[in-house]
Amino acid sequence: MIYPRTLIQTSRSFATTARVHRHRVLAYCEPGSPSAVIRAITHRSLPAPAPGTLNLRILLAPVNPSDINVIQGVYPSKPTASAFPGISSELFVAGNEGVAEICALGSGTDGKGLSVGDWVIIAKSQSGTWSSARNVHLRDVIKLPRKQGVTVVHAATMTVNPPTAYNMLNDFVDLKPGDWVVQNAANSAVGQAVIQIAKAKQLKTVNLIRDRLGNEAERTKRELKDLGADLVCTYSTLTDKTKLSELKGFLGNKPIRLALNCVGGEVTTHMLKLLGPNAHLVSYGAMSKQPLSIPTSYFIFKGLTARGFWQSQWYENRSRDERIALLEKLTDIVASGYLKEPKHEIITISAEDTDDVATQKAQQLLSEVETGSPGRKVLLHIEDPVV
Amino acid sequence: MIYPRTLIQTSRSFATTARVHRHRVLAYCEPGSPSAVIRAITHRSLPAPAPGTLNLRILLAPVNPSDINVIQGVYPSKPTASAFPGISSELFVAGNEGVAEICALGSGTDGKGLSVGDWVIIAKSQSGTWSSARNVHLRDVIKLPRKQGVTVVHAATMTVNPPTAYNMLNDFVDLKPGDWVVQNAANSAVGQAVIQIAKAKQLKTVNLIRDRLGNEAERTKRELKDLGADLVCTYSTLTDKTKLSELKGFLGNKPIRLALNCVGGEVTTHMLKLLGPNAHLVSYGAMSKQPLSIPTSYFIFKGLTARGFWQSQWYENRSRDERIALLEKLTDIVASGYLKEPKHEIITISAEDTDDVATQKAQQLLSEVETGSPGRKVLLHIEDPVV
Repeated sequence: MIYPRTLIQTSRSFATTARVHRHRVLAYCEPGSPSAVIRAITHRSLPAPAPGTLNLRILLAPVNPSDINVIQGVYPSKPTASAFPGISSELFVAGNEGVAEICALGSGTDGKGLSVGDWVIIAKSQSGTWSSARNVHLRDVIKLPRKQGVTVVHAATMTVNPPTAYNMLNDFVDLKPGDWVVQNAANSAVGQAVIQIAKAKQLKTVNLIRDRLGNEAERTKRELKDLGADLVCTYSTLTDKTKLSELKGFLGNKPIRLALNCVGGEVTTHMLKLLGPNAHLVSYGAMSKQPLSIPTSYFIFKGLTARGFWQSQWYENRSRDERIALLEKLTDIVASGYLKEPKHEIITISAEDTDDVATQKAQQLLSEVETGSPGRKVLLHIEDPVV
Repeated sequence: MIYPRTLIQTSRSFATTARVHRHRVLAYCEPGSPSAVIRAITHRSLPAPAPGTLNLRILLAPVNPSDINVIQGVYPSKPTASAFPGISSELFVAGNEGVAEICALGSGTDGKGLSVGDWVIIAKSQSGTWSSARNVHLRDVIKLPRKQGVTVVHAATMTVNPPTAYNMLNDFVDLKPGDWVVQNAANSAVGQAVIQIAKAKQLKTVNLIRDRLGNEAERTKRELKDLGADLVCTYSTLTDKTKLSELKGFLGNKPIRLALNCVGGEVTTHMLKLLGPNAHLVSYGAMSKQPLSIPTSYFIFKGLTARGFWQSQWYENRSRDERIALLEKLTDIVASGYLKEPKHEIITISAEDTDDVATQKAQQLLSEVETGSPGRKVLLHIEDPVV
């Protein structure tokens, strides 16, 4: 189901006058299977914001694979427990990423360039964005630059995937226009962002996708080319001598110096065949659940450097000004038309849903996300309950 | 057989007056098994050196594992063929490392600080040091700094193993006195150099050795501790929970940031358990012939960087002045008593040996080196033939 754009627009248009009465969160007490442990819980309305804090209405919050891992308790980032009045145990509100609008400013937060009605990005990791409203510290939000073409979907998905793609293309190898980059899992959310941001930087991309896509492979190739992909091949190209040689011929004598990996295992080992000397292999995921297996000779004789990238760590290590600058750059790329909204579906937990119905909706959704790649980004729109 | 030190001394003492009549090389026409393809060949004496070149008497040249791989044709460094008068096919003279003394200076080489009788290091890769005499370009030698305690064995083994150890301890992580370094293959030639150079730099070392050393393990531990090792453990320590926890306890809360790897495979994967965040894994060999297998999470969440080190590449990338500075530092470490001669055996191809006898000696020696780790560095002392 694609959420009608008009609804979000409407929501925005009366946001400045809306009052938060009660609010709802998707939360859990103990780590476990998301489809089992997550519950919708309605609370009384947020009190007026304490000094230095803001009350926010969350507009949209994505369900990312890492959110699943956080709820499972297997992700290195741990959520902070929240205490809710009338609930004896501590609760973890799920959700890491999202866009919100400001409903109320606590004392000491004025004069910082923020007004009621502004859109902000939730900048603090594991803030519990799967909710209708949150109270947050001023330092934990960043105002979204208003630019033509930057939609609420862009805004809701702007702190994880596009910055991962942008930083991986910037932080490791000094690439010049015309240089090639190779990546696997090219059809993933980050993969698609890599294609588009690379295009904006006049870089060329070799994009590897799964063979088992079967008949869908042609459609996926077309879609990725529409996003700006220069070459799209399936993994088996790398193990077929003739095809590999053709591919190398196509790349010409420009050795590839950056490979991006979200798969691991053999697929990644074979990808190294495309690299020139002194290349970087940057890993940001391990979809195959297989370790990286790399012949030592790549390191010793071809000068390979293998590293990882984790956007959460990037945020930890960088200043607020660097975050703001990154958001400026990304919204510029959106505004210039290179970075499109990810394919997505918006799931609404509506104002009229009881907590039981809302819990059921959330658990069913998480079950789908847990068991398979949905092929689109799922975004939650949680309304304040009126029941 | 340990070559009596007095013989080398004697050789040196009349070197300045010695004339090169005929000379002998260990060479091969085609790559192959060293014990099959290597031949001793006697040639007429070297003519007076051409302008810009020097005639050298090779004093000692080690047999390194990489020499074996070069002769097999499986090493990335390729030798340059030499043409010898009276021999129709081109010949590759084996040997990469060694120390020589200057016998004659070609025109244009005086005033460069070199004199007949000086000891020089052969600085050009694959120069064919397994010979009694060579003619080389001035630029392909570096004068050995004369310092108390620097023996002919030190000098002969100064361009591969100690610089590998020194540079791996310097080029990757900014280590401070008291910091720990972990390495596998600790009993290898490089491993022993790492222990001693780390000690000279006030670094501490965890040294991993093979379990299958059996009864020899205790002796090896003692020997490595005598060289300056802080801790010596067998690989199985890393897969035994109790022992691993003890080891971690011993290291205290000082996370290890540098791991040196000459083995690959599982042994190296387990070694990563000892590393703290943002560590470097530097590989310089692959004794197990197994690829590196590293869970992607080390790269993404622990900030691991995996790289390689190849001393030949270091020489390629650096200036002559940097090489000279490196040799100064290494001979300083020798002179200060930290870096001992490697355990070694000197094999003499004597002046009286016919080429047939010399070939037999060389082939037998190489067969031993090829089939097993001799536990000591083998050095060749090839005399000018008088037969």
